[in-house]
Amino acid sequence: MAATLLSALLVEILIPVAALIGMVFALIQWFLVSRVSVGGGQASINNGYDQSLLDDEEGYDDAEAVALCAEIQNAISEGAESFLITEYQYLGIFMAVFSVFIFLFLGSVGGFSTKWVSCKANPSELCAPPLANALFSTVAFILGALTSTLSGYLGMKIATYANARTTLEARKGVGEAFIVAFRAGSVMGFLLAANGLIVLFIAIVLFKLYYGNDWTGLYESIAGYGLGGSSVALFGRVGGGIYTKAADVGADLVGKVERNIPEDDPRNPAVIADNVGDNVGDIAGMGADLFGSFAESSCAALVVSSISSFGADRDFVAMSFPLLISSAGIVVCLITTIFATDLFVIKSVKEIEPSLKRQLVISTVLMTLAIAAVCYLALPSTFTINVVGHQPKVVKNWKLFFCVGSGLWAGLIIGYTTEYFTSNAYQPVRDVADSCRTGAATNVIFGLALGYKSVIIPVLAIAVAIFLSFSLAAMYGIAVAALGMLSTLATGLAIDAYGPISDNAGGIAEMAGMPHKVRERTDALDAAGNTTAAIGKGFAIGSAALVSLALFGAFVSRAGIAVVDVIQPKEFVGLIVGAMLPYWFSAMTMKSVGKAALAMVEEVRRQFNTIPGLMEGTVKPDYKRCVKISTDASLREMIPPGALVMLTPLIVGTLFGSSTLAGLLAGALVSGVQIAISASNTGGAWDNAKKYIEAGASDHARSLGPKGSDAHKAAVIGDTVGDPLKDTSGPSLNILIKLMAVESLVFAPFFAAHGGIFFKWLNI
Amino acid sequence: MAATLLSALLVEILIPVAALIGMVFALIQWFLVSRVSVGGGQASINNGYDQSLLDDEEGYDDAEAVALCAEIQNAISEGAESFLITEYQYLGIFMAVFSVFIFLFLGSVGGFSTKWVSCKANPSELCAPPLANALFSTVAFILGALTSTLSGYLGMKIATYANARTTLEARKGVGEAFIVAFRAGSVMGFLLAANGLIVLFIAIVLFKLYYGNDWTGLYESIAGYGLGGSSVALFGRVGGGIYTKAADVGADLVGKVERNIPEDDPRNPAVIADNVGDNVGDIAGMGADLFGSFAESSCAALVVSSISSFGADRDFVAMSFPLLISSAGIVVCLITTIFATDLFVIKSVKEIEPSLKRQLVISTVLMTLAIAAVCYLALPSTFTINVVGHQPKVVKNWKLFFCVGSGLWAGLIIGYTTEYFTSNAYQPVRDVADSCRTGAATNVIFGLALGYKSVIIPVLAIAVAIFLSFSLAAMYGIAVAALGMLSTLATGLAIDAYGPISDNAGGIAEMAGMPHKVRERTDALDAAGNTTAAIGKGFAIGSAALVSLALFGAFVSRAGIAVVDVIQPKEFVGLIVGAMLPYWFSAMTMKSVGKAALAMVEEVRRQFNTIPGLMEGTVKPDYKRCVKISTDASLREMIPPGALVMLTPLIVGTLFGSSTLAGLLAGALVSGVQIAISASNTGGAWDNAKKYIEAGASDHARSLGPKGSDAHKAAVIGDTVGDPLKDTSGPSLNILIKLMAVESLVFAPFFAAHGGIFFKWLNI
Repeated sequence: MAATLLSALLVEILIPVAALIGMVFALIQWFLVSRVSVGGGQASINNGYDQSLLDDEEGYDDAEAVALCAEIQNAISEGAESFLITEYQYLGIFMAVFSVFIFLFLGSVGGFSTKWVSCKANPSELCAPPLANALFSTVAFILGALTSTLSGYLGMKIATYANARTTLEARKGVGEAFIVAFRAGSVMGFLLAANGLIVLFIAIVLFKLYYGNDWTGLYESIAGYGLGGSSVALFGRVGGGIYTKAADVGADLVGKVERNIPEDDPRNPAVIADNVGDNVGDIAGMGADLFGSFAESSCAALVVSSISSFGADRDFVAMSFPLLISSAGIVVCLITTIFATDLFVIKSVKEIEPSLKRQLVISTVLMTLAIAAVCYLALPSTFTINVVGHQPKVVKNWKLFFCVGSGLWAGLIIGYTTEYFTSNAYQPVRDVADSCRTGAATNVIFGLALGYKSVIIPVLAIAVAIFLSFSLAAMYGIAVAALGMLSTLATGLAIDAYGPISDNAGGIAEMAGMPHKVRERTDALDAAGNTTAAIGKGFAIGSAALVSLALFGAFVSRAGIAVVDVIQPKEFVGLIVGAMLPYWFSAMTMKSVGKAALAMVEEVRRQFNTIPGLMEGTVKPDYKRCVKISTDASLREMIPPGALVMLTPLIVGTLFGSSTLAGLLAGALVSGVQIAISASNTGGAWDNAKKYIEAGASDHARSLGPKGSDAHKAAVIGDTVGDPLKDTSGPSLNILIKLMAVESLVFAPFFAAHGGIFFKWLNI
Repeated sequence: MAATLLSALLVEILIPVAALIGMVFALIQWFLVSRVSVGGGQASINNGYDQSLLDDEEGYDDAEAVALCAEIQNAISEGAESFLITEYQYLGIFMAVFSVFIFLFLGSVGGFSTKWVSCKANPSELCAPPLANALFSTVAFILGALTSTLSGYLGMKIATYANARTTLEARKGVGEAFIVAFRAGSVMGFLLAANGLIVLFIAIVLFKLYYGNDWTGLYESIAGYGLGGSSVALFGRVGGGIYTKAADVGADLVGKVERNIPEDDPRNPAVIADNVGDNVGDIAGMGADLFGSFAESSCAALVVSSISSFGADRDFVAMSFPLLISSAGIVVCLITTIFATDLFVIKSVKEIEPSLKRQLVISTVLMTLAIAAVCYLALPSTFTINVVGHQPKVVKNWKLFFCVGSGLWAGLIIGYTTEYFTSNAYQPVRDVADSCRTGAATNVIFGLALGYKSVIIPVLAIAVAIFLSFSLAAMYGIAVAALGMLSTLATGLAIDAYGPISDNAGGIAEMAGMPHKVRERTDALDAAGNTTAAIGKGFAIGSAALVSLALFGAFVSRAGIAVVDVIQPKEFVGLIVGAMLPYWFSAMTMKSVGKAALAMVEEVRRQFNTIPGLMEGTVKPDYKRCVKISTDASLREMIPPGALVMLTPLIVGTLFGSSTLAGLLAGALVSGVQIAISASNTGGAWDNAKKYIEAGASDHARSLGPKGSDAHKAAVIGDTVGDPLKDTSGPSLNILIKLMAVESLVFAPFFAAHGGIFFKWLNI
């Protein structure tokens, strides 16, 4: 056993301390956000903002506007809460049923025996009974689900807490508003990263009390944590995604198209639902998605290393390598955040996007150093990784530096590529805007072509990271590469959550009738948020690809599959059907958005037609009804795609066995990544092409505009088509590929014991 | 050596006889079509058609209209010829260069040695020198290319010969017009099937004179035939596809949108180019594509069986099994055609679609019996198929019946599914039409979702066929399953070519100012042709999937790869990058159509603006210039996607070796199939949703129409978006997956000898 420089005791101190630091930092940020006062008639406390704003617009009553902000914020917060509570009720039922499933399926592997058995890998040692594995997997599953739920809920809370505050700060200046939105984003980022880490760590420590020396059983049970996190992400991404786009498309189709009123107009009954959607879809959904990736990649790394020399040597320090990477990430992100909030203060609109991009670069560079340190301190100089059916792979510790680093830097490349293809500062989006000249059809054709093209570099970056880490440290390398990409999670999430908060802030400014200058500032924040949202989605899908592959590797290890040979019938059929699944799933989610949006359209039309005075602005619409319709429709509509994801691995594994399932996972992975990237970039590009025409910041842009021109109308059609692509079907595919993989991993022993009954029956 | 019931001599007679029967039948059909007289002032020979038509429309001069038909036909024919001649010049240069490549790459394997060497499989026997293999592969390549070129050219000739004749026969009745279009289609179908078969057969017989007992070398060289056929298909599908949609979209964008004149209006300068496009894209392109599939699946089967017991036993009858299946197919299709032309005569519009669909069913049922006979007569009762790195697979002859049959019936299922998703007789297209109510955006969303959904059943059908044939007879099973799907090629092509001929006939009727009733009849023919075109594309992609897999199998055999294990870095990276290629390729082809269409738009606008009297119809536009622009633009724009297809396997094989290339091929195959199916069905559905609204045949359809309503405008946008999807990027993907696979197969010895230099350099 090669020694590590860190001691086990130090590790047991460092990890919780890092998590604690993250939490305290999040609380400080929250406190700073909370110092902006909202409502309560305290409009007199307007110290600091530019009084001249008030003189700009006649008839503008600041006190009234502030009170209105508070009111709207309350409505959004209530709407988001009511959706999440309803969603969690469904989620609760699902979790209960699925917990029983996990327990029964895994328990059945050993006939619900409670006897310790001799281990497969080393028959001289005793391993925990399958019933215990079933029980602990179930507990880990519930823990993962609860942690994800809590993180998503808190994220939503802080986002709906900060949105109006961002609006109010925009009265002072764009820099002030930026800081509030960004701080709120980092509360979400740090809370999630710290919670995810600490709960996982505590679970490992507690499970160890029972498992003792059976580390394989211990870490395989821990894999349930990833499954739990990802199951919540299914609800968050798919349900939340349908919600947000049903409300958005529904509001636009009646408001902009039929009634010709602007976006975020308070007369539109669906406007609150639309703003709620940003919080439940882009905040809670994205959070659950990335939490799932974090939990799954950690679990995949732990499963693989538990059956390798780390596990065999009972080397707790090296085993904790994935958690130490995440711990270091929290500290790195903390330093990075200070750059944005304290070192470089934003003074003008132009500085927003560079500042956010600088966050990515700073965190990546610092993290590279941190990875080197962790590799040096926490890993023995040489160790082995077991590969089923092959010789164990001998790995030197510096090789892991390249594994983790390749994931980290691939993330940065994906981020920059996404920006290039979706920001209207570059040629691709401008070409799409230009194609609006000849109508909506050419806009759609060019947009789709842009999305397809934008896949090339991210996939090559992922491929290089995979090749490097795979070659250097087999599946363990992939898992830590995924962790590398996710190590700057807190910063990534902060940037990402900043987007919907700014979007909400803009909506609130519009609805509260804030002065023109304030709205200009919130619009600028929002435009930067659009690009960062696309970058966030790029990270999410990139990490999902690595995570799925890592889970896939852990699955084949656990299922005892030595080779997934695609020139065999079972594997190839799995591969081609797997490649089809993302299409089936996307068809479902897009149709779901369509149907839910039509339900919203009907309600909005009904209110416009039956509530007198609504169009004149003298009577308020019934916002709550729209929130309820979006809630009900999205939760109903998520059932078919959810069932497809959850049932496919179970059915395929049970009927056709592990080999076919392995092919299916590989097919879904390689096909899903492409659609996910192209869908979110296409949507982002259309959105920004529209914004490019609206802003009219160049001669070219002005030649296409203004708002209401034929080219602009064509751009609006593209934007609407892109909505479900970029916010529902695209990002939901992350969940498809990850959840199928982690589910297969958790149920692997069952499939190995009882799977493939159809082929057994056919005697093939 | 197990005996076959047929003798080698009989086989050597039967195959050429079947091909001869096919050719004679094609000539008879041509003769029957030629009996319809066109032009030459012979309008007096109007015996048989309904004189009352003439009375219907005032001022209609039949003689003038007939003369005009002849003139338009000439213009279309000349335009098509000029495009093909130009295309063939480029093709000639490409072929010459690529021939040198093939010769040098393959010759270099054995250092251009001219000595016979001892065979790898059986060192006691002598095998032909690599230089001979290089030479014969090159010859086979040129033969395949020439046959494909000839077939495509003849198809174009008969199609442009029959289009005006169909228009003229429509004066008599819908049945008469149908027969002309359908007969012309079968000329194409039978000529292509017969030519492909006879040239391949003669090549084998002649090559054998040199190769003697070295059957492995013989049939591996023959694989060049498939590569030649597919290279032409690249030009036909991609170049022709860009041509047809550049002209179509360009004509529509100015004509319909800007100038508000109907489709096929003779005042539109691009109208002839548009009609030319149908002939070069849908006729010559589709023909080359399916010829390529036929040639490749035959070659794949021959390569695999030459290294198995058929080859080892020098069993010429069994070796010829793939050719015998195709021979039987010609006879079956002949009988099937008689059902449509003589047994069930079409009397009303409603009978057209059922009649075409009946062709599919009849040919499939009859072919099933024929397959059984061929399996019984031409195969030994037991034989073995070699599988590299595994035990040879022992196969009984009845198992091959299921292999071929599974491909055949999978084709029928794909055909019917395609019809369900693209015909406006069913709910899916009607839902898409209905979504036009809320605008173009919802139309696009619903159309994309429909396309994604339409992938499910075809992929499952292909998966079942693959599983069955793979399990029963390894890669040989896949190859003959592909042949099974293609065995009814003559009928499939006849149905398929019928579509563009009818489309042209409608255009000619419009341009010649034929009476309303005649146009109604040609429109009805055309509408049925839309659905059959989609079915044809379904077949093309289905067979391409099977063919690619078969070629993939032949490639791994020839490259000596025993396992393509996707849990290895090289293979997995190949897989994920391969899955990306169809996106890259589609981005290129879609962008190409967009750019070529914009060039056309400018020319059409220029003519409208600068030619006085054009809009009034007193002066004719300059059709030839538009034809030239489409020709030049399409050939220029096909270079980047063409280079991607041709260079990728060479670069990947040379730099990263056969294992990575194998992963890449698998990835491109499973991902490409999905996009190809969804793209062509989405496009077909949008087209027919538009036609559904225009026809207004039900209360629902009328509530959306009429032409010019908002819903109709939304439908037109969908239709235009669908054009490049269904006629360029979707079908071109067939070529991507097939051509990369066959190229890899031909260059396999080079990659095995010299490939993977990058990894060798890295020492991985």
